[in-house]
Amino acid sequence: MSTEAADRRAIAAAVETIASLGPLDAVAMEAAAAHLDRLTKPPGSLGRLEELVISLAGITRRPNAPVVRRWIVVAAGDHGVAREGVSAYPPDVTAQMVANFIAGGAAINVLAAAAGASLVVVDVGVATQIPGTGRPGPDHGRGGRLLCERIADGTASMTLGPAMQRTDALRAVAVGLRIVADLRSDGGVDILGLGEMGIGNTTAASAIVAALTGAAVSRVTGRGTGIDDERRAHKVAVIEHALEVNRPDPDDPLGVLAAVGGLEIAALVGLMLGAVAARIPVVLDGFITAAAALVAATLQPALAPRLIASHRSTEPGHALVLERLGLRPYLDLGLRLGEGSGAALLLGLVDSACRIRDEMATFESAAVSGPGDG
Amino acid sequence: MSTEAADRRAIAAAVETIASLGPLDAVAMEAAAAHLDRLTKPPGSLGRLEELVISLAGITRRPNAPVVRRWIVVAAGDHGVAREGVSAYPPDVTAQMVANFIAGGAAINVLAAAAGASLVVVDVGVATQIPGTGRPGPDHGRGGRLLCERIADGTASMTLGPAMQRTDALRAVAVGLRIVADLRSDGGVDILGLGEMGIGNTTAASAIVAALTGAAVSRVTGRGTGIDDERRAHKVAVIEHALEVNRPDPDDPLGVLAAVGGLEIAALVGLMLGAVAARIPVVLDGFITAAAALVAATLQPALAPRLIASHRSTEPGHALVLERLGLRPYLDLGLRLGEGSGAALLLGLVDSACRIRDEMATFESAAVSGPGDG
Repeated sequence: MSTEAADRRAIAAAVETIASLGPLDAVAMEAAAAHLDRLTKPPGSLGRLEELVISLAGITRRPNAPVVRRWIVVAAGDHGVAREGVSAYPPDVTAQMVANFIAGGAAINVLAAAAGASLVVVDVGVATQIPGTGRPGPDHGRGGRLLCERIADGTASMTLGPAMQRTDALRAVAVGLRIVADLRSDGGVDILGLGEMGIGNTTAASAIVAALTGAAVSRVTGRGTGIDDERRAHKVAVIEHALEVNRPDPDDPLGVLAAVGGLEIAALVGLMLGAVAARIPVVLDGFITAAAALVAATLQPALAPRLIASHRSTEPGHALVLERLGLRPYLDLGLRLGEGSGAALLLGLVDSACRIRDEMATFESAAVSGPGDG
Repeated sequence: MSTEAADRRAIAAAVETIASLGPLDAVAMEAAAAHLDRLTKPPGSLGRLEELVISLAGITRRPNAPVVRRWIVVAAGDHGVAREGVSAYPPDVTAQMVANFIAGGAAINVLAAAAGASLVVVDVGVATQIPGTGRPGPDHGRGGRLLCERIADGTASMTLGPAMQRTDALRAVAVGLRIVADLRSDGGVDILGLGEMGIGNTTAASAIVAALTGAAVSRVTGRGTGIDDERRAHKVAVIEHALEVNRPDPDDPLGVLAAVGGLEIAALVGLMLGAVAARIPVVLDGFITAAAALVAATLQPALAPRLIASHRSTEPGHALVLERLGLRPYLDLGLRLGEGSGAALLLGLVDSACRIRDEMATFESAAVSGPGDG
């Protein structure tokens, strides 16, 4: 069996497993809700914290789903389209930031540590050498573990043809599946947050979203890391041109992914498919992880309700994608960093929500009167 | 000097100090912002987390304001108006919940512990005996410290006349001032979160807000701990009647507080005045702490920009008050519990924001290219 056939088979198996999961587990959700109502607080008064607890029960089938083994996986890759001047930053920054993730100096290192989450960084398609890899560098004591799974030195420019050969897109999806399998066999995963790094990847995400939803490119294209009006207009024109050149078929999500996506976005698709198939709650980050989720949910709609939308970013297409996925974000903090930063913040909220579930007294144990007991 | 004169003098001194603080410290805020822009992330890309860091600098005059000594003070008191059937819970629950706070079984115990905050509960006017006080009870290892400052066994019903004599309202404000002074001299306070417990206190808060803003009672009256439409209509009628009976003068905020407020709300006013005068950032919780803030900011408008609005609750008057105070809430999670629960969650966000400030690498230290370095 060729590698391509193996990748195809692994993806099909995950998609099939997800289709067979059925709806969220109503019994576990009811048990979780009933437990929350026995705690010394008015029923429902902790709002969306309670919703989080109930969602975790529905996804995992466990009213007291553990959230101890928290992982954040950041997928990194470069984009040929970055050469078209769509970003505020030079493409080298992808490799430099991966080095920063390993050293522990980036925002995601700080936020993952604050949320008690372990960090894995996967190079699935960075274009340049990662500075200092293998050599001792500055160690902030919370650096991520690097997985070397580079499939290519970045993608080709989507303005000239497909960003990736379909084979490479499938390989990157399969990398994501394999990472989930490895984490599961190596200690286990209770909840998985996702993030990404790739100069130019809001361009890819906007192109994916426009292709899959039919929304106008200008409607789903924003300022990324912080470009001005003029460069944003150029970015819109570049994406429109790429969609004309590639004409991706919205009914073929993996084709869209190959044509205008990115290797790190493909790996995110695999991470989601693998985790959801294993009933592991998946926490999305910003616009790019949402675009990956749209690819995965187009492959298999049963995936979407098993995702948790951490936040709504300032990217204009993000709210649209979350709406299509039927997800309501928990935080709205004007974030536009990526890296999994919003997912890490949400893991902190998950921690609080599950401590409420596990550590509060009940009306009975604390001898507090309930509603109407007067 | 009589006690009343001393209380009056202490309040006037805090108000005067706040008036003399001047605007938020622009130099400290610029230094904090410049530091954030040196960190390895696009400028401003952490949105409101960066805003939090800059606010703390402006309030404390320190670009690296420490947030290590985190306190949450929960003020508890009962309300004569609770006898009018405005709440879903019997009035005994105030004392029972105070006992729960001391034992460590309530939501605020769990959330304060998760945020690394210490908890103080002040009985400033609970109506009944607090069950089990002084006797060893269940200990969850994170019980709050109880301060006994009871001024009266609850307030009188605002439907029959003023809820409190002005003297008692001033005494309760002075209790708040004194607690801040004690915390400052006993180890210090870097940031202060506020919370409350008092069956019937959304009724008092709605009455205060209607009196001070002129808004219609029905516009600022909600479901509290969870009453139905019929009981809410009754609650609106009770408040309208109380405002007719008392006719509080909106230009006399302490008069409004005495007429339709509560002892715990008065203590919150004092806590805010004392902390703001000492340049300690104050984190509000829900609608009741916001009503107290409106009283304090009517006394001295320079107080408002030194408050941090943790969240927007489901109480319909909350957004209105925050708007009047010029505050934008950070979280919108459908909370309606009180106790300081939202303030505790915000302290977690403050922790993450300040770790970003203190622990991330700079572009220079991590050898990452900045925008346009390509």
